[in-house]
Amino acid sequence: MRTTVYGTGLIGTSVALALVNRGVTVHLVDRDPEQSRIAAALGAGTDVAPAGPVDLAVVAVSPAHVAPTLAEVMGRGAARGYIDVASVKGGPRRELEALGIDMHTYIGTHPMSGRERSGPLAATADLFEGRPWVLTPTRDTDTEVLNLALELVALCRAVPVVMDADAHDRAVALVSHMPHLVSSMVAARLEDAEMTAVRLCGQGIRDVTRTAASDPRMWIEILSANPGPVADLLCEVAADLDETVAALHALQSADEAKRRLGSAGIEDVLRRGNAGQVRVPGKHGSPPTAYEIVAVLIDDHPGQLARIFADADRAGVNIEDVRIEHATGRQVGLVQLMVWPKSASVLSTSLRERGWSIRQ
Amino acid sequence: MRTTVYGTGLIGTSVALALVNRGVTVHLVDRDPEQSRIAAALGAGTDVAPAGPVDLAVVAVSPAHVAPTLAEVMGRGAARGYIDVASVKGGPRRELEALGIDMHTYIGTHPMSGRERSGPLAATADLFEGRPWVLTPTRDTDTEVLNLALELVALCRAVPVVMDADAHDRAVALVSHMPHLVSSMVAARLEDAEMTAVRLCGQGIRDVTRTAASDPRMWIEILSANPGPVADLLCEVAADLDETVAALHALQSADEAKRRLGSAGIEDVLRRGNAGQVRVPGKHGSPPTAYEIVAVLIDDHPGQLARIFADADRAGVNIEDVRIEHATGRQVGLVQLMVWPKSASVLSTSLRERGWSIRQ
Repeated sequence: MRTTVYGTGLIGTSVALALVNRGVTVHLVDRDPEQSRIAAALGAGTDVAPAGPVDLAVVAVSPAHVAPTLAEVMGRGAARGYIDVASVKGGPRRELEALGIDMHTYIGTHPMSGRERSGPLAATADLFEGRPWVLTPTRDTDTEVLNLALELVALCRAVPVVMDADAHDRAVALVSHMPHLVSSMVAARLEDAEMTAVRLCGQGIRDVTRTAASDPRMWIEILSANPGPVADLLCEVAADLDETVAALHALQSADEAKRRLGSAGIEDVLRRGNAGQVRVPGKHGSPPTAYEIVAVLIDDHPGQLARIFADADRAGVNIEDVRIEHATGRQVGLVQLMVWPKSASVLSTSLRERGWSIRQ
Repeated sequence: MRTTVYGTGLIGTSVALALVNRGVTVHLVDRDPEQSRIAAALGAGTDVAPAGPVDLAVVAVSPAHVAPTLAEVMGRGAARGYIDVASVKGGPRRELEALGIDMHTYIGTHPMSGRERSGPLAATADLFEGRPWVLTPTRDTDTEVLNLALELVALCRAVPVVMDADAHDRAVALVSHMPHLVSSMVAARLEDAEMTAVRLCGQGIRDVTRTAASDPRMWIEILSANPGPVADLLCEVAADLDETVAALHALQSADEAKRRLGSAGIEDVLRRGNAGQVRVPGKHGSPPTAYEIVAVLIDDHPGQLARIFADADRAGVNIEDVRIEHATGRQVGLVQLMVWPKSASVLSTSLRERGWSIRQ
C-alpha cells in the first residue's frame, strides 16, 4: 500500500509512523514544510511528493480545514481512496456534498485516541493500539475504499467501529464533549472559592474536574464543529438540574409529604447516575466496580511504590488498576490497588505479612 | 483521656480504634448492642458503660440523629465535652439550639475521610491520617472543650481546620455534594444510550462519572441535611449551562458576528474551568498539572507494573502519582507515571534503556 498523509500533527504523524513500521510507503505533506520535514526526520516517511496517485490519502487536518483540503486533493485525483481523521464527521461531509464532490471514494473516520499534547514530536506509532477507530461509510462508498480504510485501521492496530456520521457526532457529544463542558462548569465554581473551602477538596472533585485542565483552544475547535448534539445533551442535563434544585427546595419544606417527594427526586437522579455509570466500559469491557480495592498506607519515601508492586507480584496477584490518593499537606498517602475480588484477600494478607499497613 | 463513642459505624469505630491505639480509654455505645459488641471485639474499646462522666463524648450517628442523641447524653451530663462527626454542621446546631441545650460544651466536627464502605468491620485506626478534620467552635465554646477536641484530632493524626458551621456546609456543598450530583447527571445520560456510543467512552467520561457509582442511600442522607447550599451551587451551574447552550446555538448562526460571540462564550467557560481546576489541591497542595507524565505501554502480563516501578526506583525517580489507562477490549494499556518535571527525561531515558516502550 502507498499512502500520502496530509497534515503532520500528532494524529497524522502517528498514523504515518504506524504505517512505516508495517512497511507501508508514506508521503508526508503539510502546508508548513518545516512540520513535514520534522515528521520525516522522525522516521514517519518521506516529505517528497509522490510521482503519481497513491492508494490511500489520509487527511489529518483540523475540522474546519477537512473539506477544503479534501476538495483540493480529490480534485486532482491524488489517490484511489480518501479518508479524514477529524473528531467530528457530519459537518465535513455536508461541506463536501455542498462542494459537489464525488463521495464514492471518501470515508470520514475518527480514531478515538487521547491527545493531551499536539504536534509531530508527540506522535507515536502505538497511539491507536487497541483504541476504537470509527468509520462512517455510506451506501455509496466503494467497497475497495472501505477495505483500504479497514486495512489502515488494522495496520494501526486499532479496533474498527462502523457508524453513521451523525450518530458518531451524537456519540462523541455524549461520551466526550458534554462531559468536558460539565467538568469545566464544576471546576469554574472553584475559581473564586475561599482557600479554606478549597483545602477540603477530596478524590471526588479531583476526578470530576480532571478533564477541565485541558487546552481550551483545541476544545473550542472541537465544540465549534459539533454544537447541535452538544447543546441537546446540555439541555437534558439542565432539565435534570432544574428537577434536582426543585427536589432540594422541597426537602426544606415544613410539609412532610413535600419532603418525601424531594427525597424521591434526589434518589431518582442518584439511581439513574448509578445505572449510567455502570455502563462505562473499564478494562475487558467490564464495569470498574467489579474490582475490589486493597488500600495501602505509604509515606513519601522513594521506592515505596516499587516495593508494593514487587510484593504484589511475589504474591502472584495482578494489579488491574491503581490510584494514589494523597493526604492534604502531609507526606503520607494511600495507594488503592484494584484487583479481581478473588485476589483481594490474598493480596491484603500477603502485603500485611510483609509489613504494609492495609486499610480494607 | 476517657471517652465514650456513641454509634459504632465506620467513623465511630475508626475513631475508637485510633484512640485505643494511643492508650485512650474508650467506651462503646450503639442503639444496636450487637454493633458495639462487634466494635469491642475488633479492639475498639469496651462495650461496658462508663461508671461516671468521661472527658469527651463522640457522637458518631447519621445527621438526622445527631441532635436527639446529643440532647440525651448532654441532658444526663455524660461527659465534660461533646462533639459529633456528622458530614453537615449547620442543621444539627440549629436543632440543638431549638431544644434549648447549653452549647458551651459542644463542638460540631467533620473528619473528611473517604467512606466507600460502612459499618464497624470497615473501620481502621488510620482512617483520618493526614486528612482535614473540620472543627466548628463558636465564641461561646469552652476553651477546655476545644482543647479536648483538638487532642482527639491529633490522636487520630488528622489535620484540624477551624471553620464556621454554615461556612463548612457551603464548602462541602462546593467540593463534594454539588460535584457528586453533577457527576450523577452526566452518568444518567448513558443509561439509555446505544451500545455503539457507550463503546467510545474514554478516560475523560470515566473520571467525570466515577463518583456517580456511590451508594444512593448514604448520599440521600447527606444531601437531605444540606439542601440549601447545594441548591445554590446547582443554580450557578444551571446559569453556566444556559449560557453555554446559547453560545453553542450562536455557533450555528449564519451571522459571523454571532458565531464569534458563541466562540467567546465557549472559551469563557473553558477558561474559567481551567482557573478553577488548577486550585484543586494535589499532593503537597500543588496543582496536579505541575507534574509531567511519562507514559509506558504495557500488556496484561502479571508483574509488569512491579518491574516498571522497580526500574523507576533504580533510576532514582520518585513517582508522584500514577494512572492506568486500558485499551478497549484489548490486553494492552498505558501506565501514566506522574513525576516532577526535572525527573521526566531521566525517567523516560532510563525506562527506554531497560526496554520499555515510552509514549512521551
